[in-house]
Amino acid sequence: MEKRQLDQDLEEIRENLLKMGGEVESMVSRAIQALLGRDDIEAQAVRDQDRRVDRLEKQIDEECLRLLALQQPAAVDLRFVISAMKIVNDLERIGDSAENIAFSVLQLNQEPPLKPYVDIPRMAEITQGMVRDALDSFVGRNSALALEVRTRDTEIDQLYEQLFRELMTFMIENPETVRRALHILLIAHNLERIADHATNIGEDVVYFLEGKDVRHPEPVGG
Amino acid sequence: MEKRQLDQDLEEIRENLLKMGGEVESMVSRAIQALLGRDDIEAQAVRDQDRRVDRLEKQIDEECLRLLALQQPAAVDLRFVISAMKIVNDLERIGDSAENIAFSVLQLNQEPPLKPYVDIPRMAEITQGMVRDALDSFVGRNSALALEVRTRDTEIDQLYEQLFRELMTFMIENPETVRRALHILLIAHNLERIADHATNIGEDVVYFLEGKDVRHPEPVGG
Repeated sequence: MEKRQLDQDLEEIRENLLKMGGEVESMVSRAIQALLGRDDIEAQAVRDQDRRVDRLEKQIDEECLRLLALQQPAAVDLRFVISAMKIVNDLERIGDSAENIAFSVLQLNQEPPLKPYVDIPRMAEITQGMVRDALDSFVGRNSALALEVRTRDTEIDQLYEQLFRELMTFMIENPETVRRALHILLIAHNLERIADHATNIGEDVVYFLEGKDVRHPEPVGG
Repeated sequence: MEKRQLDQDLEEIRENLLKMGGEVESMVSRAIQALLGRDDIEAQAVRDQDRRVDRLEKQIDEECLRLLALQQPAAVDLRFVISAMKIVNDLERIGDSAENIAFSVLQLNQEPPLKPYVDIPRMAEITQGMVRDALDSFVGRNSALALEVRTRDTEIDQLYEQLFRELMTFMIENPETVRRALHILLIAHNLERIADHATNIGEDVVYFLEGKDVRHPEPVGG
């Protein structure tokens, strides 16, 4: 009987976590749509959505703590609860980054477009794939997929560096682009942070599935 | 006997957490010294220190998980362990931000100084105080101090806004300042993030001491 209660509680945490993941994925996707479509209403909607995400974070955290206190889960169930708390934390920060992007979109929409976006949609596409796969690896208990997520972080870092240099050139050559270039840079920076959080989620999934901490690998020979 | 083991384990977590807090505080302080003193060696040292912080993070996390698995702590002890895991996560991210600051310092040191720093030392002073007080509130079990930390976040946000506008003016008026202004902006941005993490730590301390989740207060009437 007690076992059944534990399973029910774990399942509820799992469902709420996926619900939160869905909300956060949709925030990122809408923030980018708002950018590309120069859509103030969509950008504003992202900012409202963040409140739902914050509420889900509190709720899941509370469910995890209640479960830890009352059911004292062991082994893989314990690792599930601990990973869920960590994942929720990263999801909440992804939501914050999406909200920051929406804020910059509102600023950018007040001025004429600077240039067609090339690197940002590419960064957004990779980043959204990372978040989706990190969550899928959790649902499907797929540690190979979870580990693979972080390999894409390098490409994001490269795109960010490239965009940073390009925007710097814009600003130097044409001072009236500074304000817009800064906001585009902030958007890229937030996408880069979202990719970092997706990487963290992947690492938490590996810990949940295999009991191994794969964060911060030591340098070879170090 | 079992109780004594639990107390010993909790004490060890507490000590390692304070050690990690000390490392992270010193990283922030050295990164700012490296900026003001234009000191490459100090900046490089901060980057090396981050590896020690990463190792402490893994170690404390492991101690917390072992304690949860083997001793099944209850009530305030359970809240202590959960808070410790959250605090460790924020400390690690503060270390990352200090490392980012050190990276920008190395870039800035390759060019002549842009202007005397006024807002950055002020931001750094407030931010370092927030980190210190958040950790002190944990050690001294002082929830009033823990809650007070976040009130200072507003001043940090204002200083950041002010600096953002000032640096934008610099860049617009004198394009050759763009590269340096961007790095100063990144430093301010990282200080702002450190202040956010200190706020999170304060909120975790309140949860540990009072069992109340004080994150994301709902808007009045909402």
